[in-house]
Amino acid sequence: MTVRLLASALVLSFAAAGTAQADEGMWTFDNFPSAKVKAAYGVTIDQPWLDAVQAASVRLTTGCSASIVSKEGLILTNNHCVADCSQALSSEGKDYVKDGFLTGAREEELKCAGMQAEVLLTIVDVTDAVRAAGAGKTGQDFVKARDAAFATAELAACGNDKTLRCQTISFYRGGQYKVYKYRRYADVRLVFAPEYATAFFGGDPDNFNFPRFNLDSAFVRLYDNGKPVETPQFLKWRATPPVAGEPTFVAGNPGSTERQLTVSQLETQRDLTLPIGQLQRSELRGRLIQFGEESVEHKRIANQPLAGVENSYKVFFGRQFVLADKSFMDAKRAQEDSLRAKVAADPKLAAQTGDAWGQIATAQKVVAEKFIVLRQMETSAGGGSDLFSYARTLVRAAQERAKPTAERLPEYGDTRLALVEKKLLDARPVDTPLEQLYLEHWLLKTREYLTADAPQTKLLLGKESPEGLSARLVAGSKLADPGVRKALWDGGLSAIKASDDPMIKFVLAMDPAAREVRKAYEAGVTAPVDAAAEKIAKARFAVLGDSVYPDATFSLRLSYGKVAGWTQRGQEIKPFTTFSGFYDRVTGAEPFAAAPRWIAAKDKLNPNTVYDFVTTNDIIGGNSGSPVIDAKGQVIGTAFDGNIHSLGGAYGYDGTTNRTVVVATSAITEALTKVYGRTALVEELTGK
Amino acid sequence: MTVRLLASALVLSFAAAGTAQADEGMWTFDNFPSAKVKAAYGVTIDQPWLDAVQAASVRLTTGCSASIVSKEGLILTNNHCVADCSQALSSEGKDYVKDGFLTGAREEELKCAGMQAEVLLTIVDVTDAVRAAGAGKTGQDFVKARDAAFATAELAACGNDKTLRCQTISFYRGGQYKVYKYRRYADVRLVFAPEYATAFFGGDPDNFNFPRFNLDSAFVRLYDNGKPVETPQFLKWRATPPVAGEPTFVAGNPGSTERQLTVSQLETQRDLTLPIGQLQRSELRGRLIQFGEESVEHKRIANQPLAGVENSYKVFFGRQFVLADKSFMDAKRAQEDSLRAKVAADPKLAAQTGDAWGQIATAQKVVAEKFIVLRQMETSAGGGSDLFSYARTLVRAAQERAKPTAERLPEYGDTRLALVEKKLLDARPVDTPLEQLYLEHWLLKTREYLTADAPQTKLLLGKESPEGLSARLVAGSKLADPGVRKALWDGGLSAIKASDDPMIKFVLAMDPAAREVRKAYEAGVTAPVDAAAEKIAKARFAVLGDSVYPDATFSLRLSYGKVAGWTQRGQEIKPFTTFSGFYDRVTGAEPFAAAPRWIAAKDKLNPNTVYDFVTTNDIIGGNSGSPVIDAKGQVIGTAFDGNIHSLGGAYGYDGTTNRTVVVATSAITEALTKVYGRTALVEELTGK
Repeated sequence: MTVRLLASALVLSFAAAGTAQADEGMWTFDNFPSAKVKAAYGVTIDQPWLDAVQAASVRLTTGCSASIVSKEGLILTNNHCVADCSQALSSEGKDYVKDGFLTGAREEELKCAGMQAEVLLTIVDVTDAVRAAGAGKTGQDFVKARDAAFATAELAACGNDKTLRCQTISFYRGGQYKVYKYRRYADVRLVFAPEYATAFFGGDPDNFNFPRFNLDSAFVRLYDNGKPVETPQFLKWRATPPVAGEPTFVAGNPGSTERQLTVSQLETQRDLTLPIGQLQRSELRGRLIQFGEESVEHKRIANQPLAGVENSYKVFFGRQFVLADKSFMDAKRAQEDSLRAKVAADPKLAAQTGDAWGQIATAQKVVAEKFIVLRQMETSAGGGSDLFSYARTLVRAAQERAKPTAERLPEYGDTRLALVEKKLLDARPVDTPLEQLYLEHWLLKTREYLTADAPQTKLLLGKESPEGLSARLVAGSKLADPGVRKALWDGGLSAIKASDDPMIKFVLAMDPAAREVRKAYEAGVTAPVDAAAEKIAKARFAVLGDSVYPDATFSLRLSYGKVAGWTQRGQEIKPFTTFSGFYDRVTGAEPFAAAPRWIAAKDKLNPNTVYDFVTTNDIIGGNSGSPVIDAKGQVIGTAFDGNIHSLGGAYGYDGTTNRTVVVATSAITEALTKVYGRTALVEELTGK
Repeated sequence: MTVRLLASALVLSFAAAGTAQADEGMWTFDNFPSAKVKAAYGVTIDQPWLDAVQAASVRLTTGCSASIVSKEGLILTNNHCVADCSQALSSEGKDYVKDGFLTGAREEELKCAGMQAEVLLTIVDVTDAVRAAGAGKTGQDFVKARDAAFATAELAACGNDKTLRCQTISFYRGGQYKVYKYRRYADVRLVFAPEYATAFFGGDPDNFNFPRFNLDSAFVRLYDNGKPVETPQFLKWRATPPVAGEPTFVAGNPGSTERQLTVSQLETQRDLTLPIGQLQRSELRGRLIQFGEESVEHKRIANQPLAGVENSYKVFFGRQFVLADKSFMDAKRAQEDSLRAKVAADPKLAAQTGDAWGQIATAQKVVAEKFIVLRQMETSAGGGSDLFSYARTLVRAAQERAKPTAERLPEYGDTRLALVEKKLLDARPVDTPLEQLYLEHWLLKTREYLTADAPQTKLLLGKESPEGLSARLVAGSKLADPGVRKALWDGGLSAIKASDDPMIKFVLAMDPAAREVRKAYEAGVTAPVDAAAEKIAKARFAVLGDSVYPDATFSLRLSYGKVAGWTQRGQEIKPFTTFSGFYDRVTGAEPFAAAPRWIAAKDKLNPNTVYDFVTTNDIIGGNSGSPVIDAKGQVIGTAFDGNIHSLGGAYGYDGTTNRTVVVATSAITEALTKVYGRTALVEELTGK
């Protein structure tokens, strides 16, 4: 039995925050603490080991991680990382999400719209160039100069080679800037995905909990010129189950952590940005639940969006309650005070750092004033509508491409355009009733939070209502047609200006105001915060050296740990689950109903097969799909979740309770063989 | 133009909290600060004035206030206070909420289900008896002894006279206990209600904002034995508009304030109870919005519930952001520290008070542990389902009526049963699809917040899903039929136990667990907090005397103030709006569309008629419908809202910005005459 009471579980979990923890860290491959690992686990992680793992580690542009697991471009990831792909391949009456996607032969593998796979090749340090560009500048000038330096560095590293992608990434919040150079694969095809009831058994109630019984795994394959890509560097498949205590390594792309934020920034999240986001998210969640109950088809199209909203809801619920925990915030404050005291005690360091913490605190007042309008007009504009987002991309790309790359909004720089274009032009269904729901919800919340009398509300709505305007835009827009998008993309600014598509006209009309809001935020918040954060990062290096790891940035990291359960309120939580535990938990009612194939296969399966397991690895959202690797570099599972205590991981790692949740290769192998009869796939994986 | 940005408006508003403010206070009629009022406004409020106003002041059991405005039992209140009545009288195709309820003659006045009107007769101090009952007791014993003392005091004051209602109320959080003895009127009929578009023009976006253009007023009438009640004591109707600066008095029943809570209690609200409530409320809101868009009939039945949820949402949003405001909480802390210091400086007081603040802080840990389960199993059980609440009333009343009154759950004491029975047995429509929505939402949230593995979740769901269980209960229950309810009420416990109604069986099965949860909460939280609060109240009296007013308790209070606008970010907000301002704000799209009658009447109306106005009176939810009275005791409006700054009023009053929003009798008179042609009603009001 487990104790899973969300709020109180979290309250208990963070007494120890702020002190360095065993197994803590999302390390870059160029600064992995091999000596520490050797001391703790007796395992040698040398350069060849790191090179081999890096070469087989994959980043998916859909926000996940993955790994190459055969010489023929086969990639292991999570089912929830390909669910958007399954959804896009589905249509009324054909539901690959619900029923799974089960190919019998290579020809049945189908392209995933918008998905690109990336493998890291090299890392180039460009810290000096970026710092030099921003030196002496403030406000919008600072932001623009830095964006230009990023674009220049990327172009220098990748040139115009379309097989590459270069990306400048800030580490340690301005402590280092590095260009990550990737091999890009724009043709990724779906190979295997289990049924929703199997991949996400227990649904939202079990999400972020353990014991768990999910086959949250899937396979895709890299293609080039219509053929599978040859991938001689892949991770060896280990079908034998994990052993309690054995060391584990997770290679993947943790999306974002906030461990190096200042206390004033954390307070802003706690008091303003998290609550507002959660309140709007909850309302959208309610709409999607109700929408899904209206018909079978509505349930089909709302299923994935709802799962996404519910997952985010739980993530941010966890964050909000960790930040509301006094002892956690006291520890954070003590940590900050200690660093500040050390800086103050060193005159040179003190002079160089200035009042960086105070500058960030001052900028929080600007956040309080400008956050909601930025959210509604820019960062969350459109509320999730694909049509809106196609229109905004078309409008802005047309405007930006007319400028030199260094002067553009950074997301439209030359090195970014290939992916922008792919995401815009790849064909995928647009679900009209959902579009209406998203747009209306966004317009309703914009009017509510900015008020009916705000100039932005009046600009968006005129004399229309949110309900009426969203209906008119969705009914009239032709942007669901990829051909229409292609024509507007190719036609550039003159085509955009001549378009009578109501969504294009709407976005064109609101765009100057949205850019204005963004500019004001960048000048008032981004610039002073980034400049001050650079100083704090330098001070931290001066005090702590590079024995620290940078906050997560959706770039390749390696974490170490071991297979281990934990103790919760005196109860020992075992590190493994088995197939028999799964069948015990089945009630027959969603989300605790088993898929028919699994009911049929029950007697064929070994009930003691290790299904899911937990490790102490320090991961976070974005790591989904990451390979979990043993000391020999073999893959033993794919990480798909954290336990409830991991929700505080955004702000700090507590090794006593924070756990990574993994689906074991032992379970995948057994299921592919006995439930799905996918012999060819098993042979490809095991080389037999 | 107005500035209404919700969050930042609130942040600015509470710098001054904690210091006593002019016009602050919701005073009881037996302790009104007439001298203060005389000094500030030169107005004499003597006993005859107070007696006359008390005799014409009405409490509605639907959670509102009102006033008698003719000698024939006519009562003025808000439209939103009778909207549930209009809704209950409507049916598919006949929508009194949307179209208004416009009687031409007395015979057309229709009974409001569940509504009882109450007029305060006398106040009896029972502090000593209540204190004596609880003395030396702790935990559940303390709670039970006190509940018994309440019941005894009520019975002593009212006996079994069905025309009376007696209620023991705690003032100053345990500083005083008084029995309020009311004349009760159980037959209240709807006389006049305007269209929704008129009463709630601007809808949720304009709610809690000003300038405002709402005819949020309505009339009901007291009946007895099928005839209007004679009410010789009524407020005189003043049809001339209010004058800027003139003194105003509001007599009504403010529902609840938290101004005398300790800082640890406020922190619990800020960090736990408010966020959880708001997150669940937001999701329900999303469901209701989506539900209402499914069909015209769904919109009709969801309209009122949605308005209620949105109103609560805004109220608690305001509260959450006030509590998140550091300067506000610092002021609260300073206030508390000052009182504690004075107590500590007086050895006798210190000995008597003990560590009362510490005891309350300790109990907050129990709140953190038990709040969610209490909410899901007891205080919010059923999620708003009428069928559930009928079933719970039937089950518990049957169990409790078998015991002596002093041993019952207090809500089933002898003096409470008449209203319980009325609410249970009054006929009103039950909207099946909404029932399903509420129950399902509640079960989903219970599983989510308590987890799928909690014993309570397992008890509620068994092997069923929230969706399946709620559908089964709603489809199978016959409790929508008042005759079925009557039979079960009359049949008592044996009828309940023999019933095969699935809702009765469900509630019976969960009841022991729900009572268990409540008991544990009362023992761990209510008892220690109430005992400590009594000590703090005594200490406060010792230090401050009775120059303070008690927190609101939905009992009759009088507040004083004046007609006045305010200044917001340098902009002067005028205290009045006019009909011409209303027509300027009409866009034609909901909620800014005018009702057809108002479009037709535009040219007949005097455009300069004062429509709504604001005053400095200190009110809060529950005061809705309160008469706003001039120095001569004449009614000049009915209070229907506060401005955005009033949302912080739960925790403190800031006279510089906190305003009461009122619909003027001048507007009601003009509209009744020229828009609605209700001559007889105007004659009854004006005596002409």
